[in-house]
Amino acid sequence: MDRLRLVRSPGIGPVTYRQLIARFGSAAAALDAVPDLARRGGGRAPRLATRAEAEAEMARVEALGGRYLVLGQGLYPRLLAEMDDAPPLIVAKGNASQLDRPLVAIVGARNASAAACRFARGLAHDLGQEGAVVVSGLARGIDSAAHDGALGTGTIGVIAGGIDVIYPPENEARQQAVAERGLLLAEMPPGTEPRARHFPYRNRIIAGMSLGTVVVEAAPRSGSLITARLAAEAGREVMAVPGSPLDPRAQGCNGLIRQGATLVQNAADVLEAVRPMQPRVASPVEPFEPAAEESALGDVEALLGPSPVPVDEIIRLSGATPGAVQMALLELDLAGRLDRHAGGKVSLRAA
Amino acid sequence: MDRLRLVRSPGIGPVTYRQLIARFGSAAAALDAVPDLARRGGGRAPRLATRAEAEAEMARVEALGGRYLVLGQGLYPRLLAEMDDAPPLIVAKGNASQLDRPLVAIVGARNASAAACRFARGLAHDLGQEGAVVVSGLARGIDSAAHDGALGTGTIGVIAGGIDVIYPPENEARQQAVAERGLLLAEMPPGTEPRARHFPYRNRIIAGMSLGTVVVEAAPRSGSLITARLAAEAGREVMAVPGSPLDPRAQGCNGLIRQGATLVQNAADVLEAVRPMQPRVASPVEPFEPAAEESALGDVEALLGPSPVPVDEIIRLSGATPGAVQMALLELDLAGRLDRHAGGKVSLRAA
Repeated sequence: MDRLRLVRSPGIGPVTYRQLIARFGSAAAALDAVPDLARRGGGRAPRLATRAEAEAEMARVEALGGRYLVLGQGLYPRLLAEMDDAPPLIVAKGNASQLDRPLVAIVGARNASAAACRFARGLAHDLGQEGAVVVSGLARGIDSAAHDGALGTGTIGVIAGGIDVIYPPENEARQQAVAERGLLLAEMPPGTEPRARHFPYRNRIIAGMSLGTVVVEAAPRSGSLITARLAAEAGREVMAVPGSPLDPRAQGCNGLIRQGATLVQNAADVLEAVRPMQPRVASPVEPFEPAAEESALGDVEALLGPSPVPVDEIIRLSGATPGAVQMALLELDLAGRLDRHAGGKVSLRAA
Repeated sequence: MDRLRLVRSPGIGPVTYRQLIARFGSAAAALDAVPDLARRGGGRAPRLATRAEAEAEMARVEALGGRYLVLGQGLYPRLLAEMDDAPPLIVAKGNASQLDRPLVAIVGARNASAAACRFARGLAHDLGQEGAVVVSGLARGIDSAAHDGALGTGTIGVIAGGIDVIYPPENEARQQAVAERGLLLAEMPPGTEPRARHFPYRNRIIAGMSLGTVVVEAAPRSGSLITARLAAEAGREVMAVPGSPLDPRAQGCNGLIRQGATLVQNAADVLEAVRPMQPRVASPVEPFEPAAEESALGDVEALLGPSPVPVDEIIRLSGATPGAVQMALLELDLAGRLDRHAGGKVSLRAA
């Protein structure tokens, strides 16, 4: 309940959530501390989600036949938990025990060729026969074909909207089938209509929870290539299915292979590529360590400006302990005065 | 003349030739020494090609409008000269100054798809526009397409038979065009009909003289893959054009990429891949150093048996100098009692 209130409070993203739990040991203590932290950071206290709101969501999830997966607990995807911006809570519907098997993502173009869709379906089927569970995004094209191929053996659909929102509309039967025979996951609360900004978050979950990501036909600058980049950044195996240079739809995958992705032609190639990742699945998630540090707010604020700088550099320049710097950043963050950027950089938000 | 006699003497291959020149300083001295060496090695003296035979061949090459390229001299392909088994002499017809430009090989299946042939022709054309000379084997399919694409800018055809023998028959006009506007190379003497055993020798010249080899559609276990392997063993760049896993003709190239070949989609990719090789072209060929060493025949013979062993190991086990071991091997070789194997291994020939 307290976790849900914290997660659903506006302005508290996965990174901030993780920092708060690390500092205060529990969601309840974090909820109590937020108003004070924000005031010390020089802003107004953010509006916290109320008990009533959290209770209503929990009741709705239950009514929909769903449950919550909690970061660091139970069946929460273990590889995903290693990521800095892992979602603190995920709504799940279906057979969650599939999360304990080797997970392989298959993603690709929504407007893929019929041949590529057939290939994706066959690859998903063959991976399923070998015991892997196929993760994808329930989009048109390659995603749909991948789910179809693995429906009989195990498949996980990660969607950008709420667990009860069908998207795209023609996937209604497929999304229901995945929720019944496989597993459906959603970071957003029930009822959320998927917006453009939700898709990159969805993609990080697909890439982060899987041992590796296979890209089958992807246009240059497409969402599939973003998923591949996120997988690579997370240290996961990136694989791509090649195509003729004469086929414009092969450009994205051939480019990935040139950048170092493993060329795969069949399930055996995929399993060979992800095998070195397997032992990581067994490693337990490190629990959050509460820490009570002083805040170096004044020093940190003086070092920050509108240009993003690495947190490491602020720690070095301030001479304060890492914990004191992180606490100061948390205060500025909750006060709505901090922007967090890729690569662990932060900047002061323009007033 | 003496070089030609030595090269055309039965039983004196490129490696033996190189050893003889290294020991005796000149082909004339080597010709004089061969009978004695063979006797000391315990065999009969090999039949040496006569002056008359050499004169007849030289007259024929001249009448055909050809000339000889001599290992270590003039326009002889510099990268090829670095190989242990570089042909001592090559018959050349056409514009030999093309050998001074960056050489890139394009090889592939004889029964390639029309699309792949079109791709090879376009790639050869684009490489030509960028100043590269396209090397290939004048076979059907990809080879022919590569020559056609580069005929206007520069192309070298390396053939398995004699310079005056057309093969395959339908390539008559193409072979003539390459000899007139490009350059035609043949290791074998004029009049030689190409046999199956000649093609791997031809392939080593293509791979050895080029900065890199691009494979466009190749069947598993095909000659093109042998050329790629020879290029890799010689430290040259190996490149392959990918294809869909659904296309059986793409298996060879996709397999090469999985083994580490660079995926290339266009001329820019090829030029980027071979760029690191370019400085090597400028390095001069090391001249042969004559050396007069004693022979360690007795020791070496005692160490040899029917199983191939590395020459290095014989040197180590015998305790003799490398030169004395090489001299002993030369004697056994010329006596017809030695077999030379891949990887610098040798064995005694069964009596």
